[in-house]
Amino acid sequence: MRPSGRKTDEMRPITIETGVTRHAEGSCLIKCGDTHVLCTASIDERVPPFLKNAGLGWVTAEYGMLPRATNTRMRREAKNGQSGRTQEIQRLIGRSLRAGVDRVALGERQIVVDCDVIQADGGTRCASITGGWVALKLAVNKLMKAGFVTSDPLTVPVAAVSCGVYAGQSVLDLDYPEDSEAGVDGNFVMAGSKLIEVQMSAEGSTFSREQMNAMMDLAERGVATLSAAQLDAVS
Amino acid sequence: MRPSGRKTDEMRPITIETGVTRHAEGSCLIKCGDTHVLCTASIDERVPPFLKNAGLGWVTAEYGMLPRATNTRMRREAKNGQSGRTQEIQRLIGRSLRAGVDRVALGERQIVVDCDVIQADGGTRCASITGGWVALKLAVNKLMKAGFVTSDPLTVPVAAVSCGVYAGQSVLDLDYPEDSEAGVDGNFVMAGSKLIEVQMSAEGSTFSREQMNAMMDLAERGVATLSAAQLDAVS
Amino acid sequence: MRPSGRKTDEMRPITIETGVTRHAEGSCLIKCGDTHVLCTASIDERVPPFLKNAGLGWVTAEYGMLPRATNTRMRREAKNGQSGRTQEIQRLIGRSLRAGVDRVALGERQIVVDCDVIQADGGTRCASITGGWVALKLAVNKLMKAGFVTSDPLTVPVAAVSCGVYAGQSVLDLDYPEDSEAGVDGNFVMAGSKLIEVQMSAEGSTFSREQMNAMMDLAERGVATLSAAQLDAVS
Amino acid sequence: MRPSGRKTDEMRPITIETGVTRHAEGSCLIKCGDTHVLCTASIDERVPPFLKNAGLGWVTAEYGMLPRATNTRMRREAKNGQSGRTQEIQRLIGRSLRAGVDRVALGERQIVVDCDVIQADGGTRCASITGGWVALKLAVNKLMKAGFVTSDPLTVPVAAVSCGVYAGQSVLDLDYPEDSEAGVDGNFVMAGSKLIEVQMSAEGSTFSREQMNAMMDLAERGVATLSAAQLDAVS
Amino acid sequence: MRPSGRKTDEMRPITIETGVTRHAEGSCLIKCGDTHVLCTASIDERVPPFLKNAGLGWVTAEYGMLPRATNTRMRREAKNGQSGRTQEIQRLIGRSLRAGVDRVALGERQIVVDCDVIQADGGTRCASITGGWVALKLAVNKLMKAGFVTSDPLTVPVAAVSCGVYAGQSVLDLDYPEDSEAGVDGNFVMAGSKLIEVQMSAEGSTFSREQMNAMMDLAERGVATLSAAQLDAVS
Amino acid sequence: MRPSGRKTDEMRPITIETGVTRHAEGSCLIKCGDTHVLCTASIDERVPPFLKNAGLGWVTAEYGMLPRATNTRMRREAKNGQSGRTQEIQRLIGRSLRAGVDRVALGERQIVVDCDVIQADGGTRCASITGGWVALKLAVNKLMKAGFVTSDPLTVPVAAVSCGVYAGQSVLDLDYPEDSEAGVDGNFVMAGSKLIEVQMSAEGSTFSREQMNAMMDLAERGVATLSAAQLDAVS
Repeated sequence: MRPSGRKTDEMRPITIETGVTRHAEGSCLIKCGDTHVLCTASIDERVPPFLKNAGLGWVTAEYGMLPRATNTRMRREAKNGQSGRTQEIQRLIGRSLRAGVDRVALGERQIVVDCDVIQADGGTRCASITGGWVALKLAVNKLMKAGFVTSDPLTVPVAAVSCGVYAGQSVLDLDYPEDSEAGVDGNFVMAGSKLIEVQMSAEGSTFSREQMNAMMDLAERGVATLSAAQLDAVS
Repeated sequence: MRPSGRKTDEMRPITIETGVTRHAEGSCLIKCGDTHVLCTASIDERVPPFLKNAGLGWVTAEYGMLPRATNTRMRREAKNGQSGRTQEIQRLIGRSLRAGVDRVALGERQIVVDCDVIQADGGTRCASITGGWVALKLAVNKLMKAGFVTSDPLTVPVAAVSCGVYAGQSVLDLDYPEDSEAGVDGNFVMAGSKLIEVQMSAEGSTFSREQMNAMMDLAERGVATLSAAQLDAVS
Repeated sequence: MRPSGRKTDEMRPITIETGVTRHAEGSCLIKCGDTHVLCTASIDERVPPFLKNAGLGWVTAEYGMLPRATNTRMRREAKNGQSGRTQEIQRLIGRSLRAGVDRVALGERQIVVDCDVIQADGGTRCASITGGWVALKLAVNKLMKAGFVTSDPLTVPVAAVSCGVYAGQSVLDLDYPEDSEAGVDGNFVMAGSKLIEVQMSAEGSTFSREQMNAMMDLAERGVATLSAAQLDAVS
Repeated sequence: MRPSGRKTDEMRPITIETGVTRHAEGSCLIKCGDTHVLCTASIDERVPPFLKNAGLGWVTAEYGMLPRATNTRMRREAKNGQSGRTQEIQRLIGRSLRAGVDRVALGERQIVVDCDVIQADGGTRCASITGGWVALKLAVNKLMKAGFVTSDPLTVPVAAVSCGVYAGQSVLDLDYPEDSEAGVDGNFVMAGSKLIEVQMSAEGSTFSREQMNAMMDLAERGVATLSAAQLDAVS
Repeated sequence: MRPSGRKTDEMRPITIETGVTRHAEGSCLIKCGDTHVLCTASIDERVPPFLKNAGLGWVTAEYGMLPRATNTRMRREAKNGQSGRTQEIQRLIGRSLRAGVDRVALGERQIVVDCDVIQADGGTRCASITGGWVALKLAVNKLMKAGFVTSDPLTVPVAAVSCGVYAGQSVLDLDYPEDSEAGVDGNFVMAGSKLIEVQMSAEGSTFSREQMNAMMDLAERGVATLSAAQLDAVS
Repeated sequence: MRPSGRKTDEMRPITIETGVTRHAEGSCLIKCGDTHVLCTASIDERVPPFLKNAGLGWVTAEYGMLPRATNTRMRREAKNGQSGRTQEIQRLIGRSLRAGVDRVALGERQIVVDCDVIQADGGTRCASITGGWVALKLAVNKLMKAGFVTSDPLTVPVAAVSCGVYAGQSVLDLDYPEDSEAGVDGNFVMAGSKLIEVQMSAEGSTFSREQMNAMMDLAERGVATLSAAQLDAVS
């Protein structure tokens, strides 16, 4: 029995509101249950130095959390540099979004995706990837409308969902109470039916190949639901 | 003529939405025109070391800006420590809120007020103080309802507004286009008709005592409007 | 009754000794009672990047304190980066001095004013501004004598003084025992009869508009005294 | 065809030399082809604060690289704090080793495993986990011999191997030339036939579930080989 | 021929003014020619943790330079942590002063000696040691007068002087023009006729044992002169 | 009687193994008794900015210690910047090696020498200099073989040894037990019979000029032995 009463393969309700900030080229507020993330995409006509004159675009991401996004107030990272966990998450978001971009079609420019968690209840990195793609797509649409980009570099949505083994059962889309109890949890990033990242980890425990496959099955279903919501939001 | 078409003594529309995040003891989203700040108040039953066993409460504040709250994306401060400007602002917010608190009535506990700018269009420090007081009051109300605090430590709202000399005229509540042009600008923090902080500054210019008085007059009017909105929000 | 026995409108004795270090283009040791600050002005023929080819000069300031300038030894800031307080002070000094400079007349060069507190007894930021202007003026005089600057960019001295409400009375030029007790204190920066910066602040208290005006009156008198000493020193 | 001429399921030669430094409680130099990592285990009789009086042991890891372990000299991390990549790797090593430890049997003490890459040719994090387990086991053996630990907390070896898709084929144990070309690569950490961590990542590309399964099959074979070498080394 | 016209064994004029700051327990301004260093000694009744309850005193030193102590303005170290050179110098000053202290007689307390260079013209570390001893002695005298210390822990003055090989000749007490040209230079710290530290260094060159002995002879003479000035200052 | 049973003028056994890492242009593992240091030399065809177009080469050094090179695990310096001690050591190594190089013959290129202590038992800075010269020479030999350098810039080996006063006697080549007990110790860097650096230091003690000469005599003997081993290794 899940703490929320959800079925093992039931996701939290998802909403994606677009155009939420006046300054960003693309933006959305994604809500996966009580996890709320504000995603903005900022276009920068310069690429990082290592891509100068390579004719390729770049997408990168940064991830942050408001101090009271969590149950206990967290130290603002500004004070001591970003933690290893934060850096690991934002590297994952950036890699995931890049894997779904045709960098030749994007052209020599960079898009920075900022994902700021307003309220956290588990699964913030997955919500960031899913919402980040929406912000990215909206910014790219603006470039296409203005004629700076002529062929769509973002044809298939990139979405992410978590799965885990909770109370002995494989479950989809963990919320915070499940996440903090699960012996095994994984994050699955996909573009349609293709895989981009799979990360499964057991803290103080192990898991079998059968459990791995069960989580993978659930993830495929979750990503299909998320991608429908993404396409709906950007149309 | 002001860029927004407002009269010299006309403030931007103000709205204060309370209860916007699930975890914080007090919270609001304050909108002063296109300046939007999320304010949360977090109760901490421990005071800072220098107040141990003094029987006095403490209120402190932190101020942040989402990277794309501004027209051009800003470097996330997390990367390089907080700038002098940020520290100066958060010291002002903390001092201002403390001046309006009866620290004996609050009792030996600390409340941390976080002000995070979601969208910026001038006057973010003033909006942070005005909204911060609302979040603080809501958290204190919770303490009073639970019987931890018996006498209200926050009887008069603390509010802040900016004034400046724009195109030769004293104007109330500067927005970003005015703020970046004004030769003189000031921030006025008040609790009812009493002053808490007055900061007037001329960048590459000077001002007369008459101009100082004219700004002060406008500020008194602005603070009255803001305090009415604050009391409305917390009731 | 003031701890020092001074009258409410009586300043501490002021001396300004010039030419105190061999290397700086302009220098002075200013003593306001027991507050002693060494001020140097260093000419740099390059301006900061944002002013390149703008035909405008720049003045900036840095503020430091020797570890034993105070009653209790302070941690050398070198160890942990400069505190918010230090940055706030040096931003104030720089802004104040710039407001009194004709940046076109100065020409495309930068002058860095360093204010190092040798001994502290309250009012170090005001002494830094007053002494800093003297060092700046001496450096500019050298530029004028050498023919690099032809029209004097510093015609009116910039001086600063503190006022406060101590034991219920408005008093001029607070020393440390007063400063640590005063419920309200303010710093006033002026160029002749014009205002540059006004900062009034109440820690855990409030003040009335009448008190504000009384402090302003005292400050005008104090600045007149300081400016006479400045002009004497640079002639 | 692999650059090294190896078959798709052929690992590099592995050697594990133990007792390589006089001071550490456990140590080994592991060589996986041209990747050489010095692993030491240091016993600390105190646990981290969050485990005080919990009756549980702790294992943590740090990872470093000598500046000239790579083809081009790398900046010594000591100068600028550890990079996100380094932190991500050492968090993985620590989590992996902890998953294979009976923390009750270990008792309230901490073991720090340091993995320092002397020479790098791909797969340094996997070699660190595999060698780190050997150092850890040797340190624990010393504790058991001395009677401080009575029941073996490390019954099954923890080992790790990388797999990837290179030139369209799934291959085992990537060296640097393969690693830098592979569109997909993964790291698999196992304790016998059980999984501890699975991380598969596509840089600028995607992969299918069939490819995921093929890599998993190869990894199982690789880990079996490594574990045999580990058991041989510690006996 | 030396740039200053001095003879090879001729020191610069030395003056030591004591009691220069109101707050420090001991203080002096030492001038060795155009090198001016302000030295203060601060008594701290607590010792560092590693000396707790050992019945031994401790002396430590910090060294700083005002930004315009030199011909070209130097970056204030506060911004980026102390340089290796600064740390090396302050470790030397601390070690040197400790070598001349009877730490049992001093009793369980710490004295921090701050040496801040007001104006530099070569030999700042030597002037810091020589002046630092005077400040230290004055602070200890205060402890003895108050009866906290009964047996004098500072019986022989510690002084330091530099020597070098300039234009092929061994010379005493290098000023900046000599120091920047000398192929070999050394710093000699002595307590009476006993040696505490000898550091001789050749930048891009070598020296013979005969040259070493010649520098040593000069240093002995220089230290005798300095110690006479020290004793004169503290009496 | 020395703890190791060695005679006062007896060095520890020394071995130098060359070519120990595949990537570096020059490398060796030097063992002075139980002190083991891995030295690599990396050629960089660019010189530091201050030497651009000066036609002179540059040699610099970095020094590190593996966390468990010592009896007690040390904090990895990567976490908090390099300590003053580490910076002091690497400045010494760099200066020492440069003093033995003909920088014109080397030509406009830089060689970085990394000295990483694998196991420590006293004298790590001396072993680093002696082994660093071997790595440097091997890298230069590669440049000469390739015709990039035509005249040998390294004709005389640079070697270093420590001496000290232990139990009242001057002894050669201190190991850790002696080093931690000695009241006086010194490091002597020489190129053949010429001196490059002499550093003698008394911690909480003093020494006489006779003792200085006795240490110097021992050092000359030690350096001769080391240089023979160096020439043997590079031939």
